[in-house]
Amino acid sequence: MEPVAWVGGSSPEHERIIGWQAPPLKFGVGATREIGYELRRAGVRSVLLVTDRVLAGLGLPARVAKLIEQEGIAVSVFDRTQVEPTDESVTRAALELAPLRVDGFVGLGGGSAIDTAKMLNLLLTYPGRSVRDYLNAPIGIGARIPGPLKPLVAVPTTAGSGSECTAMVALGVSGLNVKTGISDLRLLPSLALIDPANTLTLPPEVTASSGYDVLTHACESYTARPYDRRPPYPAPADRPLYVGANPISDVWVEQALRLVGRYLRRAVLNPDDLEARIGMSQAASYAGMGFGNAGTHIPHACAYPIAGLVRDYRPEGYAVDHAMVPHGAAVVSTAPAAFEFTYPTSPERHLRAAELLGADLGGVSTAHGADVLPATLQQLVADTGGPGGLASFGYSGKDLPALVEGALKQQRLLVCCPRDVAAHDLKRILDGSMTG
Amino acid sequence: MEPVAWVGGSSPEHERIIGWQAPPLKFGVGATREIGYELRRAGVRSVLLVTDRVLAGLGLPARVAKLIEQEGIAVSVFDRTQVEPTDESVTRAALELAPLRVDGFVGLGGGSAIDTAKMLNLLLTYPGRSVRDYLNAPIGIGARIPGPLKPLVAVPTTAGSGSECTAMVALGVSGLNVKTGISDLRLLPSLALIDPANTLTLPPEVTASSGYDVLTHACESYTARPYDRRPPYPAPADRPLYVGANPISDVWVEQALRLVGRYLRRAVLNPDDLEARIGMSQAASYAGMGFGNAGTHIPHACAYPIAGLVRDYRPEGYAVDHAMVPHGAAVVSTAPAAFEFTYPTSPERHLRAAELLGADLGGVSTAHGADVLPATLQQLVADTGGPGGLASFGYSGKDLPALVEGALKQQRLLVCCPRDVAAHDLKRILDGSMTG
Repeated sequence: MEPVAWVGGSSPEHERIIGWQAPPLKFGVGATREIGYELRRAGVRSVLLVTDRVLAGLGLPARVAKLIEQEGIAVSVFDRTQVEPTDESVTRAALELAPLRVDGFVGLGGGSAIDTAKMLNLLLTYPGRSVRDYLNAPIGIGARIPGPLKPLVAVPTTAGSGSECTAMVALGVSGLNVKTGISDLRLLPSLALIDPANTLTLPPEVTASSGYDVLTHACESYTARPYDRRPPYPAPADRPLYVGANPISDVWVEQALRLVGRYLRRAVLNPDDLEARIGMSQAASYAGMGFGNAGTHIPHACAYPIAGLVRDYRPEGYAVDHAMVPHGAAVVSTAPAAFEFTYPTSPERHLRAAELLGADLGGVSTAHGADVLPATLQQLVADTGGPGGLASFGYSGKDLPALVEGALKQQRLLVCCPRDVAAHDLKRILDGSMTG
Repeated sequence: MEPVAWVGGSSPEHERIIGWQAPPLKFGVGATREIGYELRRAGVRSVLLVTDRVLAGLGLPARVAKLIEQEGIAVSVFDRTQVEPTDESVTRAALELAPLRVDGFVGLGGGSAIDTAKMLNLLLTYPGRSVRDYLNAPIGIGARIPGPLKPLVAVPTTAGSGSECTAMVALGVSGLNVKTGISDLRLLPSLALIDPANTLTLPPEVTASSGYDVLTHACESYTARPYDRRPPYPAPADRPLYVGANPISDVWVEQALRLVGRYLRRAVLNPDDLEARIGMSQAASYAGMGFGNAGTHIPHACAYPIAGLVRDYRPEGYAVDHAMVPHGAAVVSTAPAAFEFTYPTSPERHLRAAELLGADLGGVSTAHGADVLPATLQQLVADTGGPGGLASFGYSGKDLPALVEGALKQQRLLVCCPRDVAAHDLKRILDGSMTG
């Protein structure tokens, strides 16, 4: 199948503008060794290294700190990043670190550590404001970040969130059992330093779940409501950061899907396959370049209550002392049903996504292809030991009203769905996702 | 054919790092109307708009100036950009504009206007230094730009140079009959504002020549010596800006080639085909994202003396009062012979490039495919009324020594060639390019 062509926009009356931006990238095995050079080049003299306890136990933060200190830069380490951070966890960290004076940040870890680093940069640079001020409305106020932030180098150790390439953070909201986010161009890292060797120590379960996040948000942004078929907005400043599927996000997302199809199984099944780690690190960053611009929709909207309402599920491979559903497992669990639901809006995009992931489209017609992408996703999840549906997290039919209510709160995401979504649609999708 | 896979780098001993960066993009029909908003957002209060006389005659700079002034920003206009600028032309402009006090720049035009705007930003921000200080060695000193430049919004009106997305300028050198450039990350525009409607007034000859530039530098960067098969360098600061073909530049270049194959003929043959204009504008920017990172090689190295030594050729469609070869016509004229020469280093890349441009590879084997990409390029040039070889610019066999000598001066480009290039190789390529 040829890439999906954009034929829209062929009339000047169809005015739709795409905004897109990416941080500078430095990519390659061994790139970590250049972190000191990069911080010095950015004029940083004292840096806060934000990471987590698992990585600290493996010794990576200490090695990175040493590399930075060799360039004459002072390093403070915060290694108590909470997995799936919340407004409370980042506020607590900011209070504790308030006396610290640094002029730069490093986020070393998965999406949780990088997002916590972004939040600490924000909260320490502009003290006196609360996280809620910035959280997306209606949960927060959605205030703009008042000015420039300090240099932040993002060093991912998973191939998952793509946070190293996005201008957003995802946060749980304490007391509300829901996740939301902050989207602001100023949150874009000043450098994404991507060293696939840093992912070699990930346990297979974490490799898989991180990969499901890449897989799902790539499919979501590829099928999102297109940028040229959305309601008009009055002024450039009103243009959402999530602009919808567009030719620029397609460039990235198509490559990400191809790489996931080629490398996710290999990275999970043989953690020492460096070529697969390189491919998945590329896939994660490329998908971040795409979805951070185009947006996500139903699977991400459902994932927030799935993560928020969990009672006692404890995933293997994660060092956590509380119930949790890994973000990637949460998003992929409703993906098959969601993409069956969105199929009629763009059969060619759904089929092309499946093909990029490795599906054979021989004999498939668009009239009878609604199950191709769902089946492709299910096979990939099954081959990599992934979750068997919402029931495996402890959910049952009686949780549906609360899950639907939580998903409906994510209007910011649901507007990116290529068709309108009502409560009963979400209920059917969630219900259809109970078993894998 | 599947995209070419990267299997290199699968051993940590193979340490090669890719650096990549792009300006933020704003893309779409009508995007020009947001220029005032963008300049205001960047804190600009007084801007120099750099453009050329042809555009001034069409009225576009006046309309853009008005849009900027509506946001309360003062505008000065410099509309005497020289086509194919030189160290002398930009120095003269800088001297004349020295008394001006502005805090931002707009480059409105083709590569010549955007490059002139980049140079004026540099020369007016750091007065007292000469262009030669910055020009690539050995022609110049190759000095680093001493500090940050002022915000510069690049607004291309051709689909060609990709200068809106690159960190470099190309300049003729007075007295030497040669072109060279300046490469420095600080030259990256702060915004690439790409409005395909601005290309609707291009005459077919200029559309064609601009498109040949996209076509050729996309093929060159796709076939350039790969980033992981080059001589090692001692430190990150020594890494060249042109890092060689790599997975990130591939992402952009593959899309650019596909778009050129689909839209260049349509844009030349029917100037009012807005969809084709949109496709070519995307192709130009995407190619800029790729080649500005990967590099170019033989066709660009030969193009500089081809442009520099011309005696009396005057191209149609260009408003110039002196002999000149349009840059795109110069680069494409040696491309078929150059890619036949480089074919053995990566038959799969050469064939894939041809396929992306629309060639049918049915029945072609790698052992007998050396003429596929050259024939594909020649057909595209013939279909769009392009040049019939170096003889059509007035060159003959007796010019070969001077052309070879000029090309050999471009060692910065020739190191990107996937095989070593000697004088006799260049002579054979140039000689084989006399007729189209």
